[in-house]
Amino acid sequence: MPPHTAHTHHTPLSEFALIDRYFRRATPLRHAALGVGDDCALLPLPAGEMLAISTDTLVAGRHFFGDVNPAALGHKALAVNLSDLAASGARPLACMLALTLPAVDDAWLAAFAQGLHALADASGCELIGGDTTGGPLSITITVLGGVPHGQALLRSGARAGDDIYASHRTGQGLGAARLALHLLQAQRGQAPESAIVRLDAAQKTALLHATRQQLEAPEPRTALGLALRGVASACMDISDGLQGDLRHILHASGVGATLYASAAAEPDAARERPNDGACGLLAASSPVLHALGHGQALHYALAGGDDYELLFTAPAQQRAQVAHIARQTGLQLTRIGRIEQEPGLRLRQADGRNVCIQANGFDHFRA
Amino acid sequence: MPPHTAHTHHTPLSEFALIDRYFRRATPLRHAALGVGDDCALLPLPAGEMLAISTDTLVAGRHFFGDVNPAALGHKALAVNLSDLAASGARPLACMLALTLPAVDDAWLAAFAQGLHALADASGCELIGGDTTGGPLSITITVLGGVPHGQALLRSGARAGDDIYASHRTGQGLGAARLALHLLQAQRGQAPESAIVRLDAAQKTALLHATRQQLEAPEPRTALGLALRGVASACMDISDGLQGDLRHILHASGVGATLYASAAAEPDAARERPNDGACGLLAASSPVLHALGHGQALHYALAGGDDYELLFTAPAQQRAQVAHIARQTGLQLTRIGRIEQEPGLRLRQADGRNVCIQANGFDHFRA
Repeated sequence: MPPHTAHTHHTPLSEFALIDRYFRRATPLRHAALGVGDDCALLPLPAGEMLAISTDTLVAGRHFFGDVNPAALGHKALAVNLSDLAASGARPLACMLALTLPAVDDAWLAAFAQGLHALADASGCELIGGDTTGGPLSITITVLGGVPHGQALLRSGARAGDDIYASHRTGQGLGAARLALHLLQAQRGQAPESAIVRLDAAQKTALLHATRQQLEAPEPRTALGLALRGVASACMDISDGLQGDLRHILHASGVGATLYASAAAEPDAARERPNDGACGLLAASSPVLHALGHGQALHYALAGGDDYELLFTAPAQQRAQVAHIARQTGLQLTRIGRIEQEPGLRLRQADGRNVCIQANGFDHFRA
Repeated sequence: MPPHTAHTHHTPLSEFALIDRYFRRATPLRHAALGVGDDCALLPLPAGEMLAISTDTLVAGRHFFGDVNPAALGHKALAVNLSDLAASGARPLACMLALTLPAVDDAWLAAFAQGLHALADASGCELIGGDTTGGPLSITITVLGGVPHGQALLRSGARAGDDIYASHRTGQGLGAARLALHLLQAQRGQAPESAIVRLDAAQKTALLHATRQQLEAPEPRTALGLALRGVASACMDISDGLQGDLRHILHASGVGATLYASAAAEPDAARERPNDGACGLLAASSPVLHALGHGQALHYALAGGDDYELLFTAPAQQRAQVAHIARQTGLQLTRIGRIEQEPGLRLRQADGRNVCIQANGFDHFRA
């Protein structure tokens, strides 16, 4: 249950007791000089490093269902922020949590804190401060990382001729999270069923099983971001959908791009594929492709969202290095297109013809 | 109007256009290496300094009236955060804005951004990133400052024998902001009138005029915080009310305290007052004291909130230095009590008798 309904505590904890119980920890700080409990937290930076900093807000009913597993929510609230550090090639150091709660629900808070702390521990990103306040359920986390001077990955470095890559788990392409969201919305009678209406119940269950983890517990690509320093020419994370996000790189870099619908659409696939990994937006083995067909699978891959994978560009001479990083991180790094001088975003199909992709990345004030 | 009612834009700006129009600025960055527009902002720290960081959330209907002047709200949202940097003796460098809006209202946003930027410029605290999202109106700002290693002001340094001080403008004691809030709530039929019920309309208008600025546009005590490095033994800002906030210093430092109700309650006032400034919680010239009487004025001073003044302790041998800092900053630094070995918090009255002060600082989940 969300904390504003049934299971609220009858003698609510004070704000300070709440922080003490759930968010102050006995373990010593590894990075910060001072953590939760003073007016400011204090964080020294490693020598030669700059601070990398990012903030993301999750609002109940917008970014998550009010009844989502609170441990998964604690994980995800931090994961989407760590994803921004990864996209900049920064090593996580610390985070601040601003938590707005309609009421204090002990069980909910304990699970939320557990999910948050587990990922914080695994990422070396310690919670050093924040604010708790009453109001509609919302979570804003600010993450702090370190990156050596001049080594941050930016959106502005893509050059014509660079390859475009997206990371993902093997067997899990882009758009899985948005497909999971649509399946969950359909269960609640909230979503247009169009994309999934012709699936039977067993197919929906199987697809949800295959994709739900990606929606509710994305894994920030921290190790990948660090490995891409000095290799990628531009990088960002995919949070609002591939095509909308890629446009930010194109705009910042002053270039255009062509994406490959599938491996067959890659102009030099036959020549190079054996040596440098997967190509194209749709893998032949994709369960989404099998269940929904080419058009719908492409739609999810291009216009999905909540992927929290890394989208990056690299010069063609880095292909072997990218393949090495893929093996090192255990991720699939799929070559999905190429940066070009010509402005705009195009999709190259298996028959070699291009179609223009219209701008419609997800946008919080247009949805 | 708050943005979710009448004056919303008919063709709403996208999230990205909104950031561009209102929160990205043409002026070059002074501190950051990279500002709004990438996955992370990048901030180098001055040599020899640590990062000081704090986060505060303001929620509509909790921390401000939905129809408050948006320029004042932009100012205050940053001011309450800068107040935390001041309390740590940190110099402001940069801030991150997480803004959750029910809809996009151009006039409201332009005014909000103007209020925020004006204080950011005056404080040298540039906006370098953030997040905008749809949802119930709420503002979370994270401020980043620099403080030389080992020089941050903490809550934990108060020692028995230290004087306790509070800053304020001349003629404006502690509790003014809470009094203004009660007057505004009474106008809306929202507040228990008890404290102010026997005032006539003209008195209420005069009191609101005298106190409203303190509620809606508090001035962060940045210069004072910097001046107190090496002088104050402990420091924090007064946000939830003097007595509750002072308890945090007492707890962190393992000490107790006695506060002086007025100058006459100060044990060695006659001997030392001519040389070292104002004493006691209530100044004889206080307009609140005149309008409401001793008991109510004390209540506002002790249990008010939203003061955003600095509460600090210093050894007695620093009195001349504190008086010098008061002249330098143009603030009144009133000696309001003394740190003692004996645990607990006491109030010493003009007749020399002590009363025990019960804990009831403002708490977001008990109000």
